Amino acid sequence: MDFHLFQHNARTKIENQLQQLVSQSNDLPYSPLFFAARYSLFAPAKRLRPMLVFAVCESFGVDLDHALIPACAIEMIHTYSLIHDDLPCMDDDDLRRGKPTLHKVYPEWHALLTGDFLLTYAFEILSSAPHLDSDQKLDLVGSLAKRAGAHGMIGGQMIDLLSEGRAIDWKILEQMHLRKTSGLIIAALEFGGIISSVSSHDLDSLRKAGSAIGVAFQLIDDVLDYTGSQEELGKMIGSDFEREKATAVSLVGIEEARTKAQILLQTAKENLNNLSSTAPLLNMLFEQMIYRKK
Amino acid sequence: MDFHLFQHNARTKIENQLQQLVSQSNDLPYSPLFFAARYSLFAPAKRLRPMLVFAVCESFGVDLDHALIPACAIEMIHTYSLIHDDLPCMDDDDLRRGKPTLHKVYPEWHALLTGDFLLTYAFEILSSAPHLDSDQKLDLVGSLAKRAGAHGMIGGQMIDLLSEGRAIDWKILEQMHLRKTSGLIIAALEFGGIISSVSSHDLDSLRKAGSAIGVAFQLIDDVLDYTGSQEELGKMIGSDFEREKATAVSLVGIEEARTKAQILLQTAKENLNNLSSTAPLLNMLFEQMIYRKK
Repeated sequence: MDFHLFQHNARTKIENQLQQLVSQSNDLPYSPLFFAARYSLFAPAKRLRPMLVFAVCESFGVDLDHALIPACAIEMIHTYSLIHDDLPCMDDDDLRRGKPTLHKVYPEWHALLTGDFLLTYAFEILSSAPHLDSDQKLDLVGSLAKRAGAHGMIGGQMIDLLSEGRAIDWKILEQMHLRKTSGLIIAALEFGGIISSVSSHDLDSLRKAGSAIGVAFQLIDDVLDYTGSQEELGKMIGSDFEREKATAVSLVGIEEARTKAQILLQTAKENLNNLSSTAPLLNMLFEQMIYRKK
Repeated sequence: MDFHLFQHNARTKIENQLQQLVSQSNDLPYSPLFFAARYSLFAPAKRLRPMLVFAVCESFGVDLDHALIPACAIEMIHTYSLIHDDLPCMDDDDLRRGKPTLHKVYPEWHALLTGDFLLTYAFEILSSAPHLDSDQKLDLVGSLAKRAGAHGMIGGQMIDLLSEGRAIDWKILEQMHLRKTSGLIIAALEFGGIISSVSSHDLDSLRKAGSAIGVAFQLIDDVLDYTGSQEELGKMIGSDFEREKATAVSLVGIEEARTKAQILLQTAKENLNNLSSTAPLLNMLFEQMIYRKK
């Protein structure tokens, strides 16, 4: 399948489904919860994690409709994490996905609750996802909770905030990226594998690919925080530097960070080569994650 | 079974299991996440929601060990909701379960992330709870996500915060309590029903009982916010009044609020009478929820 057509179709599918899942609902006393969720969900976004789910399913010949609700669940978790991470007590960011952050448009408590809602709702929709059997749905719940949890994304954010203003080494930085960024990327690839009922060997290769490409993706994020423009990225740049946060760039410099990302990209691709199916779309997505300007 | 022995045993079981689930883990770069979770989880607490789960299982003769992990999941969700509700941008409370609130002891971001962790972890442990089949586990995930979500607890908190400083009527107040407080209480009773594989008729009775007793429980909370002492309650009192929050007391007065709670208690008990098993422990728990001083 043509890569750009795949991306276009995947984006359309995801955004239409999200529109249905979080509808306008004007008539409830707590409707403002949905308005806020829509503000964050429908800001311009890459939809990278849903696309990774879809790309795995394409490789194994599985109908993308089977992956639709799970892909939305991951996008909800990703969006909640951005909302909470942007809050004044966390990273205190003003700009996200090219728009003011949620707590700049709604009261802070409203943004916090909206994050809680998206986190909770992700598990609700997983529990009743169509086309999947009960064991698959449970595996998805388990995978998402684990990768988004203490030993995954939340643990990574914890390391990040604990390390502000402190000297950390490369090993800790890698641990942080592996949890904070790779967490949901591994979940996306695992999701594709679970939905496609792949072998445990394939699932393992997907996880390894996810670990590597996730860290690489974050290294490039660190680089872009120095070299990119705010307009291109749609979020605040240089903010890591301002907060005296250790990043790949502060530890090893821009060129070395890029080189490390490229080496990890190779590792990720080797793991894709170990799959029992070819994965051309995944390969292209991985390339795009590393060779990007925003 | 003797009521006090039941309560003592239930508390011991729950607290031992929570100790195992959230262990000390000194050696991880994000260990402070677990320290904070333990601070909030192991503050003196009623463990009401886990006890409701157990009491349903006792009625239907189901081994309490089957309910242990699910009961811990509900207690985690309850604890996360207290942590987030207490944050400065939400209710800004200083005292909870007789101790300073989490954000008074740890940085605010640390408390926020700890709430996110407990919310996420609840779903992780549900997905692999022992003694239950896949459909039961999925039903538990669905029930908890729904009752803790937009149309449940989070929706109720949204109504609560939107109504600060505004005149609301009894109907809205009831909607708020029904979601914010009844939400997890219905989940607890549903959990007991799902674990005990009860009929849909019994499940319906449990839900109706939960709706009624949950609202009644919150009406008494509103009363105690006026009449109780801070020392007895272990949380700030009079804070609803200070924040110009509409409560049962501000709308109808203390006596009428108590009377309404007692009428709801009767409704809840009638629904217990409709169950296909007798439920003496549930009856006693319901009584205790209404005739209490803290």
